[in-house]
Amino acid sequence: MIIDCHGHYTTAPKGLQVWRDAQIAALKAGGARSKGSVDVSDDEIRRSLEGAQLKFQRERGTDVTIFSPRASAMAHHVGDATASLHWSEHCNDLIHRVCGLYPENFVGVCQLPQSPGVPPAACIGELARCVTELGFVGCNLNPDPSGGYWTAPPLTDRYWYPLYEKMVELDVPAMVHVSSSCNPNFHATGAHYLNADTTAFMQFLTADLFKDFPALRFIIPHGGGAVPYHWGRYRGLAQDMKRPPLGDLIRHNIFFDTCVYHLAGIELLLKIVPIDNILFASEMVGAVKGIDPETGHHFDDTKRYIDQVASLTDADRKKLFEDNARRVYPRMNARLKASRSPGDENASHVAGGARAV
Amino acid sequence: MIIDCHGHYTTAPKGLQVWRDAQIAALKAGGARSKGSVDVSDDEIRRSLEGAQLKFQRERGTDVTIFSPRASAMAHHVGDATASLHWSEHCNDLIHRVCGLYPENFVGVCQLPQSPGVPPAACIGELARCVTELGFVGCNLNPDPSGGYWTAPPLTDRYWYPLYEKMVELDVPAMVHVSSSCNPNFHATGAHYLNADTTAFMQFLTADLFKDFPALRFIIPHGGGAVPYHWGRYRGLAQDMKRPPLGDLIRHNIFFDTCVYHLAGIELLLKIVPIDNILFASEMVGAVKGIDPETGHHFDDTKRYIDQVASLTDADRKKLFEDNARRVYPRMNARLKASRSPGDENASHVAGGARAV
Repeated sequence: MIIDCHGHYTTAPKGLQVWRDAQIAALKAGGARSKGSVDVSDDEIRRSLEGAQLKFQRERGTDVTIFSPRASAMAHHVGDATASLHWSEHCNDLIHRVCGLYPENFVGVCQLPQSPGVPPAACIGELARCVTELGFVGCNLNPDPSGGYWTAPPLTDRYWYPLYEKMVELDVPAMVHVSSSCNPNFHATGAHYLNADTTAFMQFLTADLFKDFPALRFIIPHGGGAVPYHWGRYRGLAQDMKRPPLGDLIRHNIFFDTCVYHLAGIELLLKIVPIDNILFASEMVGAVKGIDPETGHHFDDTKRYIDQVASLTDADRKKLFEDNARRVYPRMNARLKASRSPGDENASHVAGGARAV
Repeated sequence: MIIDCHGHYTTAPKGLQVWRDAQIAALKAGGARSKGSVDVSDDEIRRSLEGAQLKFQRERGTDVTIFSPRASAMAHHVGDATASLHWSEHCNDLIHRVCGLYPENFVGVCQLPQSPGVPPAACIGELARCVTELGFVGCNLNPDPSGGYWTAPPLTDRYWYPLYEKMVELDVPAMVHVSSSCNPNFHATGAHYLNADTTAFMQFLTADLFKDFPALRFIIPHGGGAVPYHWGRYRGLAQDMKRPPLGDLIRHNIFFDTCVYHLAGIELLLKIVPIDNILFASEMVGAVKGIDPETGHHFDDTKRYIDQVASLTDADRKKLFEDNARRVYPRMNARLKASRSPGDENASHVAGGARAV
């Protein structure tokens, strides 16, 4: 089984954006703050996926995508905590409908109703609802709800601890993922995303967060930002600062995805980062939509790059494509088990890996 | 000849910091704002270099370092434009003394007296002084004088154009280099530096700056931040945005240095980025000071990594180690020519590459 741990609902039907536009207009007008409803039919959802994510799953040979709302649209800097909660609930409910319509293809991860200056503890309710009621297996955590001005405390600050306590209690990880940037210095997908990945890693390196939360797990997406390319720099900084070796730092707590869109980058990632800490991902349909004229294939068809890395053993591939994701997102096992027929070739493995949720 | 294009005076004698501490104390007290003088002797300068940069040049087999004030100490966010000017003048004068004491080993690059909210045009005077009076060959340009809050316009904004006009007139490049971070999210050398490199590249990719300034040249240090590792992402983003191919974008205007502290990272850089756009550098003595237990050598001994890349031809190495730096910092040619004795083995080449300054 091939699990893609990083997909966003970038193709959501227009009814979702219609609702969001109306919300933003109401915020500007200072008008009523009702949550209202999103007008999207099941057929619209099916159409939005059949020619995009589902088509690419089939074409590329991947099985299931860990699926969350569009990251750039989270825009936690818009409005206040109530606005963010309403928006997050609608986005998460739509992901839940996707997972209900295609239970074998998608497993849900939620957007959190973060808001600048509002303690992350305010997100616990929505996280718990998504995990316990909607069957989601993780969350996306934005280290910069200000959208490019970085006004929140570092992820290692006790400010975030109440949310981490709930994550550990629910046994769900967080992908560290910023949203759009309202700072003109930072292009979202070309700078802000990668900077956040790099920033989060260095925060984790310099603090003892995982002593306080040994079971807390983060996925740093986009191949870990700049980190694997600068692995020697980080090894050296850790040594100079008397911090643990990077292998020890990340072992049970930090994982990188494979959203790196060329072969040389994937080769570096797989050479440098321990295989147990890498999760397959493509982020399709996402930041880069085009076809690489040098290969004739989509830039974000990351499985093709991995397939070309001859040094990977079959055991490595199984970790990368499946086992690591099941370990990092353990609630997925029950979801996948429930969605598989008894005759499925993976059923025995899935059952073996399942755990109470 | 081997030119290291990225070295900072991180080992400056304590008299410099004594002056800076007094300045900051005076700023806090709201007291007099005299420039005063820095109490550092020539012997102190010699001692500060003999056991550090000069020793490493000898041990590693490099010849000359393009040398600038300590980047993390620029701290443009401290005080106002006058404070920044006084501090920059002292720092640059000290670099000038270094270059005077060791003209064969160091060529100067200046710190600019930037200050948050103050237009970069205010730096033109100090840039011109350093280039025309002190013989410096370039400058370090901080895209974020706020120190981690990114409140200045992007580097492609017309805000920066008066400074660029002077750079082009003087025929000097800028290394894009932030200073220390006062934002607790960003570790300086582990996040802020690399983020700035990535950010600047994406700014350049999305604008037509080099149509306005065809002769403007930037060095993006630290191996280009996250960029080479994510080269496919950038190629794809450029294509999706109908921007020029990356090779065309960078050809005459953007250069990466080799401050990447492990072999796999250097291999990626040399495989991905055109050789004409890479300048040798180590940033010693800088961000990472230790010895890599896996190799027994300093992390920042980047020449060793390059020496291990068998695919480089002799012509490639000459570009990487010397010719590219002479092309990007053309004023260096006259400096090096002046500092070589007639019998020097490189003299004929240096003379051939020299140009009027």
